Amino acid sequence: MPPFSPFALSTRLASRAIVPAASTFVRPSVAYTVSRRFHPTRMASKPIATLDASLVSRLPESSPTLFEAKRKLNLTFEAIAKELGRDEVAVAAIFYGQAQASPEDIKKLSEVLNIPHEKLEAQIPPIPDRGRTLDMPPKDPLIYRLFEVVQNYGYAYKGVLNEKFGDGIMSAISFSTKVEKETDEKGDWAVITLRGKW
Amino acid sequence: MPPFSPFALSTRLASRAIVPAASTFVRPSVAYTVSRRFHPTRMASKPIATLDASLVSRLPESSPTLFEAKRKLNLTFEAIAKELGRDEVAVAAIFYGQAQASPEDIKKLSEVLNIPHEKLEAQIPPIPDRGRTLDMPPKDPLIYRLFEVVQNYGYAYKGVLNEKFGDGIMSAISFSTKVEKETDEKGDWAVITLRGKW
Amino acid sequence: MPPFSPFALSTRLASRAIVPAASTFVRPSVAYTVSRRFHPTRMASKPIATLDASLVSRLPESSPTLFEAKRKLNLTFEAIAKELGRDEVAVAAIFYGQAQASPEDIKKLSEVLNIPHEKLEAQIPPIPDRGRTLDMPPKDPLIYRLFEVVQNYGYAYKGVLNEKFGDGIMSAISFSTKVEKETDEKGDWAVITLRGKW
Amino acid sequence: MPPFSPFALSTRLASRAIVPAASTFVRPSVAYTVSRRFHPTRMASKPIATLDASLVSRLPESSPTLFEAKRKLNLTFEAIAKELGRDEVAVAAIFYGQAQASPEDIKKLSEVLNIPHEKLEAQIPPIPDRGRTLDMPPKDPLIYRLFEVVQNYGYAYKGVLNEKFGDGIMSAISFSTKVEKETDEKGDWAVITLRGKW
Amino acid sequence: MPPFSPFALSTRLASRAIVPAASTFVRPSVAYTVSRRFHPTRMASKPIATLDASLVSRLPESSPTLFEAKRKLNLTFEAIAKELGRDEVAVAAIFYGQAQASPEDIKKLSEVLNIPHEKLEAQIPPIPDRGRTLDMPPKDPLIYRLFEVVQNYGYAYKGVLNEKFGDGIMSAISFSTKVEKETDEKGDWAVITLRGKW
Amino acid sequence: MPPFSPFALSTRLASRAIVPAASTFVRPSVAYTVSRRFHPTRMASKPIATLDASLVSRLPESSPTLFEAKRKLNLTFEAIAKELGRDEVAVAAIFYGQAQASPEDIKKLSEVLNIPHEKLEAQIPPIPDRGRTLDMPPKDPLIYRLFEVVQNYGYAYKGVLNEKFGDGIMSAISFSTKVEKETDEKGDWAVITLRGKW
Amino acid sequence: MPPFSPFALSTRLASRAIVPAASTFVRPSVAYTVSRRFHPTRMASKPIATLDASLVSRLPESSPTLFEAKRKLNLTFEAIAKELGRDEVAVAAIFYGQAQASPEDIKKLSEVLNIPHEKLEAQIPPIPDRGRTLDMPPKDPLIYRLFEVVQNYGYAYKGVLNEKFGDGIMSAISFSTKVEKETDEKGDWAVITLRGKW
Amino acid sequence: MPPFSPFALSTRLASRAIVPAASTFVRPSVAYTVSRRFHPTRMASKPIATLDASLVSRLPESSPTLFEAKRKLNLTFEAIAKELGRDEVAVAAIFYGQAQASPEDIKKLSEVLNIPHEKLEAQIPPIPDRGRTLDMPPKDPLIYRLFEVVQNYGYAYKGVLNEKFGDGIMSAISFSTKVEKETDEKGDWAVITLRGKW
Amino acid sequence: MPPFSPFALSTRLASRAIVPAASTFVRPSVAYTVSRRFHPTRMASKPIATLDASLVSRLPESSPTLFEAKRKLNLTFEAIAKELGRDEVAVAAIFYGQAQASPEDIKKLSEVLNIPHEKLEAQIPPIPDRGRTLDMPPKDPLIYRLFEVVQNYGYAYKGVLNEKFGDGIMSAISFSTKVEKETDEKGDWAVITLRGKW
Amino acid sequence: MPPFSPFALSTRLASRAIVPAASTFVRPSVAYTVSRRFHPTRMASKPIATLDASLVSRLPESSPTLFEAKRKLNLTFEAIAKELGRDEVAVAAIFYGQAQASPEDIKKLSEVLNIPHEKLEAQIPPIPDRGRTLDMPPKDPLIYRLFEVVQNYGYAYKGVLNEKFGDGIMSAISFSTKVEKETDEKGDWAVITLRGKW
Repeated sequence: MPPFSPFALSTRLASRAIVPAASTFVRPSVAYTVSRRFHPTRMASKPIATLDASLVSRLPESSPTLFEAKRKLNLTFEAIAKELGRDEVAVAAIFYGQAQASPEDIKKLSEVLNIPHEKLEAQIPPIPDRGRTLDMPPKDPLIYRLFEVVQNYGYAYKGVLNEKFGDGIMSAISFSTKVEKETDEKGDWAVITLRGKW
Repeated sequence: MPPFSPFALSTRLASRAIVPAASTFVRPSVAYTVSRRFHPTRMASKPIATLDASLVSRLPESSPTLFEAKRKLNLTFEAIAKELGRDEVAVAAIFYGQAQASPEDIKKLSEVLNIPHEKLEAQIPPIPDRGRTLDMPPKDPLIYRLFEVVQNYGYAYKGVLNEKFGDGIMSAISFSTKVEKETDEKGDWAVITLRGKW
Repeated sequence: MPPFSPFALSTRLASRAIVPAASTFVRPSVAYTVSRRFHPTRMASKPIATLDASLVSRLPESSPTLFEAKRKLNLTFEAIAKELGRDEVAVAAIFYGQAQASPEDIKKLSEVLNIPHEKLEAQIPPIPDRGRTLDMPPKDPLIYRLFEVVQNYGYAYKGVLNEKFGDGIMSAISFSTKVEKETDEKGDWAVITLRGKW
Repeated sequence: MPPFSPFALSTRLASRAIVPAASTFVRPSVAYTVSRRFHPTRMASKPIATLDASLVSRLPESSPTLFEAKRKLNLTFEAIAKELGRDEVAVAAIFYGQAQASPEDIKKLSEVLNIPHEKLEAQIPPIPDRGRTLDMPPKDPLIYRLFEVVQNYGYAYKGVLNEKFGDGIMSAISFSTKVEKETDEKGDWAVITLRGKW
Repeated sequence: MPPFSPFALSTRLASRAIVPAASTFVRPSVAYTVSRRFHPTRMASKPIATLDASLVSRLPESSPTLFEAKRKLNLTFEAIAKELGRDEVAVAAIFYGQAQASPEDIKKLSEVLNIPHEKLEAQIPPIPDRGRTLDMPPKDPLIYRLFEVVQNYGYAYKGVLNEKFGDGIMSAISFSTKVEKETDEKGDWAVITLRGKW
Repeated sequence: MPPFSPFALSTRLASRAIVPAASTFVRPSVAYTVSRRFHPTRMASKPIATLDASLVSRLPESSPTLFEAKRKLNLTFEAIAKELGRDEVAVAAIFYGQAQASPEDIKKLSEVLNIPHEKLEAQIPPIPDRGRTLDMPPKDPLIYRLFEVVQNYGYAYKGVLNEKFGDGIMSAISFSTKVEKETDEKGDWAVITLRGKW
Repeated sequence: MPPFSPFALSTRLASRAIVPAASTFVRPSVAYTVSRRFHPTRMASKPIATLDASLVSRLPESSPTLFEAKRKLNLTFEAIAKELGRDEVAVAAIFYGQAQASPEDIKKLSEVLNIPHEKLEAQIPPIPDRGRTLDMPPKDPLIYRLFEVVQNYGYAYKGVLNEKFGDGIMSAISFSTKVEKETDEKGDWAVITLRGKW
Repeated sequence: MPPFSPFALSTRLASRAIVPAASTFVRPSVAYTVSRRFHPTRMASKPIATLDASLVSRLPESSPTLFEAKRKLNLTFEAIAKELGRDEVAVAAIFYGQAQASPEDIKKLSEVLNIPHEKLEAQIPPIPDRGRTLDMPPKDPLIYRLFEVVQNYGYAYKGVLNEKFGDGIMSAISFSTKVEKETDEKGDWAVITLRGKW
Repeated sequence: MPPFSPFALSTRLASRAIVPAASTFVRPSVAYTVSRRFHPTRMASKPIATLDASLVSRLPESSPTLFEAKRKLNLTFEAIAKELGRDEVAVAAIFYGQAQASPEDIKKLSEVLNIPHEKLEAQIPPIPDRGRTLDMPPKDPLIYRLFEVVQNYGYAYKGVLNEKFGDGIMSAISFSTKVEKETDEKGDWAVITLRGKW
Repeated sequence: MPPFSPFALSTRLASRAIVPAASTFVRPSVAYTVSRRFHPTRMASKPIATLDASLVSRLPESSPTLFEAKRKLNLTFEAIAKELGRDEVAVAAIFYGQAQASPEDIKKLSEVLNIPHEKLEAQIPPIPDRGRTLDMPPKDPLIYRLFEVVQNYGYAYKGVLNEKFGDGIMSAISFSTKVEKETDEKGDWAVITLRGKW
C-alpha cells in the first residue's frame, strides 16, 4: 500500500453538488428555491470554501453567518458574485470581513443566502477592520506561496516598478484584483492579477 | 513655505539620461559603446534602480557587480531584458540573486554590462539561495503594499482558488510574473500578474 | 466584468442615516428623541465607526456598551463630541478605553447615548489601561500608514525636533491631537495634528 | 549632591556655534565661506543633529557623507532647508535616505555642504529604499513617543477618519509633514502635522 | 529511591486493550460490534494517540469528534487506515484537519468510528486550512526532533537535491509520506520517508 | 514576450563541466589531476552547490575553504562522497559545519579537494556547533518545503509514531538520512529518508 | 474648540468619594461599616485603581474578587495597606497575584474588603506564579516608562553597581520597593525606590 | 574539589589598583599625573567597569574612547563623577552614550581621562540616540533583575502611582536616578532611586 | 513603615496544615481518611503548589482535576510521590501533563487523591503532548533562573560534555532528574540533578 | 552504501593528541614545555572544544586568545582546571566570558596556556557581561536539550522547590554547577548538578 497522496480526491463533492439542498440543511423559502432553479450552474461542482471554526474569533459577526448560509446552499463565491454583479474575490473578501459591502451588496446577499436583511445589516461592519484574519507568515501552504512571491521577488518588483513609474507606490487600497483559471497542455494555471493606482 | 511632498520630483534623472556615460564612470570598450548607439531608448529616462549599500551583505557577490555596472551605464531592467530576451522582472530577480541565470544569460549580461565573463560566471550562484534579501514584514512602503495584499486578501484568494481548482496550491516556483503599466483618465495603474501551475 | 474595486461604495449608509432610528433598534426614551430633533446634523451621513467583535476581549467593559449605543442611534463621534464639548478624537479614545473620561463626560455620554448613568460609571475605567487595543505593527491599512510614517520619518523628526528644542522629547501624554479634513482641486486631504509639551 | 538630571544642559553648543568653522574641520573653499557670511543665522545655536556611528550600516552611502559635512559646518536642517527651498523634515529625510532628492536638491546640497557634486550624485540613491533606518518598536524615547501615539490612538484615528471620509486610508506617500514650535505660558510645544491624500 | 525515568511504562494500556469496549464508553450499535469481531488486531496494544484538550481551539470541529470516537473504541490510526485503504499518516492528518478526506473516506470513517454520516460530513472541512495546529518551533520533543533535522541539515539537503535535480524544489503538496518501524540488534528505529514531486 | 519562468535553465553548467579546470582557477598539483582522470563521472553535469557569500559569517572557517575548492574543481557532493566512502548528505553536512568529520574524512577531503592537510585540520571544528546556518522559518523555498512538512504533519507523525513505539522520541542525533531520485511517468521524485533510533 | 487634552480631569471621582457606599453596591455588614467610620481618609479622593476586564484571564481567581470589593468600597491601596500594616506596593502586588499573602494578610483583607475568609483563602494562590500579568514591552505608557529606564540606563546601573559591590547582582526577590510623592516648586515628583540584597 | 562558585573573587583587582598606571598603558602628561596625586582614593579598589568588545558596534564612537581611557587609568565612575560634579550614574550613562554631556562635562572628561579635547568633542554625540545599547529582555543577569522588577510589579506601580497622582505618567526623561550602598547585619543592599516628574 | 519584603511570610500555611481537612473542602470517604491517619507527615507544613487558573487552558483535562484534589487534601508532591513509589519531580510532571503516567500510577493517584478511577484514566493523556505549559523565556522568576543557567553556561556545558564524551548529546528524554535540599551554615541550598543518557 | 551516521567517529583526534605540539603551531617557551612534561595526561584523548569563528563577535577579546592557545596545546578544560584548582565548568565559563576570573586564575591561565600575562589581564573583562553568547532557543542540539528540560519540567521544578523551601527562588548567581560522567550497563550517562542558594 503506498503512502498517502493528499491530492487525488477530485471526485468528492461533485456528487454532493447534484443534490445541494439535501440532508444537511432545511430547505429555504419557496421563492428562493424557485430562483435557484434558474441558476443551476451556481451550485458547486467542487468542494466549496467553508469557514474553519478556529478562525471565527478573528472575524466580524457576519462571517460565520455568511459562511453557514453559503455552506447550507452549497454555493460558490462565483455563483454569489454573479448575483451581486461583483467580482468573486471581492465577495470572498466581504465574507472574511476584508472589504466593504454596499447597501446593495447587503440586500442581494440577504436574498441569495436567505438571511434576514436586518441581521445581515447589523452584523456586517460598515467599515472593515482589515488584516486581522491572518497571522504572517501564513501557515496555510496556498497562502504561503503568495507570501513567498513577495519575499522572493519583492525587490525585483520594486526595481521594475520604480523604473516604470518613478518613485512612489502601487496602492493596495485603490486597488482591484481577480483570479482566473487557464489551461494548457501542461495543466491548469492560476492567474492572479493585482491592479493598483500608482 | 509648505511642508515637503516627496513625490513632485519627476524631472530628476531624465536630464542625466541624456548623457548616460558622463562623468561618474569610465567609458567602456568601443565595441560596447557602438552597440549602445543602436539602442538609445535603452537608456533610462527615469531614475533607475540601484543597490542600497545596506543590502549588500545579504546578497551574492554578483549583485553589487551587476548593479554597479547598470548604474554606470544608466540602464533600466527593461533595456537589459530586451538584450537578454527575458522578462524584466526575471532580470531584476537575477540582479538580486533570486532567480537562476542560464549560461546564455550570463554571456549576454557580460556583454551588455561590460563585465568580464569569468568574473560574472564565478560570482553568479549556479543555484540561488532565495528569499534572504528581505525581512518580513517588509519595511519599504512599495513592497509592504504587496505584503498587505496577501495579509488582507489571503483567505479570499484561497477560497476562490480552492473553489476553482479544488484542494491544492498555486506554485510559486513553477511560476511566472510580469509588471505592466496602464494609463487611463484616473492616472497610471501598475498591473502585476502572477501565473502559477496548480 | 471588471475585478472588484473596494472603494466605490460611497452611497451605502447615507440613506440609512435618513431614518436613523429605524428597524434595527428600539427607539429610546421620549426625552432623548426630543433632544435629537434639535441636532439632526448629528446623524451620520456616512458609515459610522462600529466595534469589531474580535476586539472586544481587549477592551474595557464600557467599550461594547458605548459602541452598541452609538450604533443604535447612528451617531458619529463628531456628533457626540459636540454634545460633550470635547474633541472627537478624545471621544473616540474614550470609546476605545484609551483616554480618561471625566464625571462630566460620563454624565453627558449617559444622556446622549441613553445609557443608565450607573452602568456607564461602573464600566468606564477611572484610569485607562492604555495601549492594549492594538498589536504592533498594526494590520489595518489605515492605522499602518501612521505606523509607517513613524518608521520612515522617525529619525527625521528626531533630528528636526532636537535642533529646534535641544535634547528632550515631545510628550505623548501632555498631548493633544485633532483630525481635520481639507479639500482642494486634488481631492480630499486628511490632516492630523499632534501637539505635545516639550 | 543630587542625582543627575539629563536635561539641564542648554548652554552646551551655543558657544561652539560662534566659531563653527573652528578646529575640528578644514575650512572649505572661499566661495562657500563667503556665502556663509550672508547667512550667519544659519549656524546652529543649539546642538545639531549628527549621525550615530551605529546607524551607518543601515543607511545609504550618502548619509555619512551628508552628516559629516553638516557637522563640520555646524549647520541645522533648518539652515540647509532654506538654501534648498524645501521643508526641513524633507531635508532630514534626505539625509537619512528616506526621501527622494531631486537633481536640484543634489546640486544645492553639494554647494551648501561643500561636497563634490559627482560624489553626492553617485551616493544618493535615485529612489530610496525606505524604512530600514529604524527597528520597531523604536528604542529612542523621542521616536517611541510617536510610536506610542499610534499604539494608543490608532483606532481612535481610524474611527474619526472613517466617519469623516468613509472607507479608505490616508496616504503616507502622497503625504507631507512639518514640525513647528509653539510657546505659551506653559512652555514649549512641539506641533507635528501630517497631511495625506485620502 | 532513584529519580524518575519517564520511559519505563511499557505495560500501561496493553491490558486496557484487552477489553477496549469497557467501562469508559457506552457500547455502540450491534452491527458495529459485530464488525469489530472480525478485526480484533485493530485494537490498540499500546497507548493510542488522543487529542489534548488544549489543542481543540486550533482545529476544525471534526477533530474532537474523530478523536473522541477513536478513544472510545481504542483504535489505532493503523487499524483505521486499514479500513479506509489509506496510509496511516494520511489518516492521522485527516484527524488533525491537515489533509483532505474524500467522500469515500468520510463514509468509511463514519462506519468504523460509529459517527453519524451527516455529522461527519458537516464537520470535516471540504478543503483543509492547513498548518495551524502547531506553533513553530514545536515544543513537543518528538516533533521538535523533526524540526531540528530541518534546522541542522536544511542546507545539506538543498545542496544535494540541487545537484541531483538542478534548481527547483521538492513539493510538499504533491507529496506522500509514511512511517515505518525497523528493529535491529541496536533496538527500534523509526523510519520516515518523504517523497515529493520535483 | 512572455513573463519569465525561472526553471527552464537546465543546460547551464553542463558545458562548463566539460572543462572543469578551466579559466577560473589555477590547476592543482599533477598528482591530483591524475587521480581525477580516473573519475571523470565525478565532474558535475548539473550546476553544483556553492556557498552564498552572505552565509559565510555563520559558518566555521572550513566552509568557505571547502566550497571554494569544490567550486574550482567543479565537483558534486556525490563525487566527493564516493571518494570518502560516505553518504553525500553527510558530506554536505560536513561542508556546512553540521556534521563531524573523522581524521580519515579530513585526510581524504584534503586529497580530493587539493587543500593542505594542516589547513583543513585546523579549520574543521573537531565538534560541530550545530544549527546556526539557518534561521527558522527558512526563507529558501526548497528548505521551507521541509519545514512545511513538519508544520503540517507534525502531530500526524507524533500520533503514528507514538502508536507504533509508545511514548518516546525518534532521535535526531543517533540518526541517518539519505536523498534519492526516483523517476516515473509523472516525472522526477525526490525521496528523503530519515532513520532515527527510538 | 481645541483638540483634546487627556489630563485635565482632576475633579472626577472626588465627589464620588464623598458617598463611597452609594448606589453601585450593597452596603456591607454593620461591623465593617463601623470600622470604616474611623478611617474616613481611607476613602479615595482620586480615581482608584480598578481591574481592566481584559486582564482577568491572566490573573489568579483572587484578583477580580479583590478588585471588585475594592471598587465597591472605593478604597485606595494606601487605605488597605494601612489596615494590613504593609506597604501599599506590596498590597497592590497581592491584588495582581505578584506577591505572597500571609495568613494574617488574608485575614485582614477579608475583614477590610468584606470578603468571606474561606473564599479568599481558596482563591489567593499560596505561592504566586509571577510575571504573567504583563507582556513586555509594556504597552501602557506609565509602565513603559519604567521599562524605558531599564532599556536606557541598564548598562549604566550595571557599571556603577559592579564598581560599588564587585561582581554579582541585586536581588529582585530578596527585595523591597516603595513609591513616594514629593512636591517642589516644579510640581509633583514620583519617587520609586528599589532596595535589593546584593 | 567542589564545583565552581563564581563569586568568591573579591581580592582580584585591588592589588592592581595600587599601581594603576603600570605596565598596560603609557603614563599620561605630567600635569595630569600631578592632579591625580591629590585624589588617590579615586583609584579603584574593586574591579572597574570596562566595555565589552561585542558592544562597541552599538555605541557612539566616544564609548570605546572613554572606556579605554578609564581602563588605563583604572578609574571608577565614582571618581570621575567627583571630578565632574555630577552623579556617577549620569557619568556612566554618558560613557554608554545614553545621556547628554555638557561642554563643561566634555572639558572635564578630557582633563580627567587625558583625552584630546577636540577628539572627545567630535566623538560625543551632541544629542544621544538613546536605548540602542541593550536588547530587551536583557541577558545579563544584573540588568535582567531590573527588567524583572518591571515585569512583576509593573501593574502594582501603576495602581499605586495612579492613586497618588491621578491619571498620567512618571517621566523617564525629566528624571533623575542614583545608586547607593547600604550595609546592615544581613549584608549589603543596593538601593536604586528613580525620581521622575509627574 | 518599611516598604514590603515579599519573603517574610514563613508562618502562613503551617497552621492551616494542622487541620488540612477543614473548612475549604468536604471530607472524603472514610476509607481514605483512615489511610491518611497513617501518613500524617504527608500533610504539608509549607504552602503547597496549586494550579494558577490562567494556566488551565494550556494543560490536559487531568491537570485541574489532580491539582484540585491535591489542594483539598493539602498534600505535597513528596507525600503523593511516596504513595506512588516514584520521584516527586516525576509526580509533579504528571500533574502538569509533562510525563507519562503508568496504569499503576493512575490507580494509586486515584486512591491517594480520592478521584474516581475512570475519570482519571479518561483525563490523563496516554502520551503527553509535552512542552506547552510554558512560554519561553519563562516569566516566573524561579523558572527563569533555570533558563538563565542554560543561557549563561550553555556553551560551557557543551564544551565540557563534548570533551568528556566526544560529539553527541545528553538525552533529555532518556533522562531522570531530582531535587534535593541541603543546609549548611550559609543557609539552604537547592540541588537539582539532571542525569541523561549520552 | 548506508546513509551517514554522524556519531561513529570516536578515533579522530586521539592520535593527534600524541603529538600535541606538532605542525600547527610554534612550540612555546622552554619553561612551559618543561612544565607540560609532568602533566602528560592533560593532553586530550578526545576532540577538544574549540571556538567557532561565527561566535567571536559575541565574546570578549579574551575568548579567541584563550581558545586559540588551548587548541594549539591540545588541552582539555579538565586539564586546565586541574592547573587552576577550579572546576572545569568554571574554566569553560571563563573561556566563554561568562564567569569572573580572579587574578590568580589569570596568572595560572597565562602560565598554562603560554599567553603573556599583560595581554590576558587586559583582555579578560574584570566583570563579565553575561548571557550574550547564546540566542535562545539554542540551536545546537546539545544545548537545546538543556533548554528543553526547563521548558518541559519548569513548572514541576517550581512546584517541588516551592513545597520544599516555601516561596522564593534558587539563585542562579550564588550558584555552583558541575558535570560528571557515569557508566553503567546501559552505557554512559551525563550528570549535571546545579546547586543554588535559596
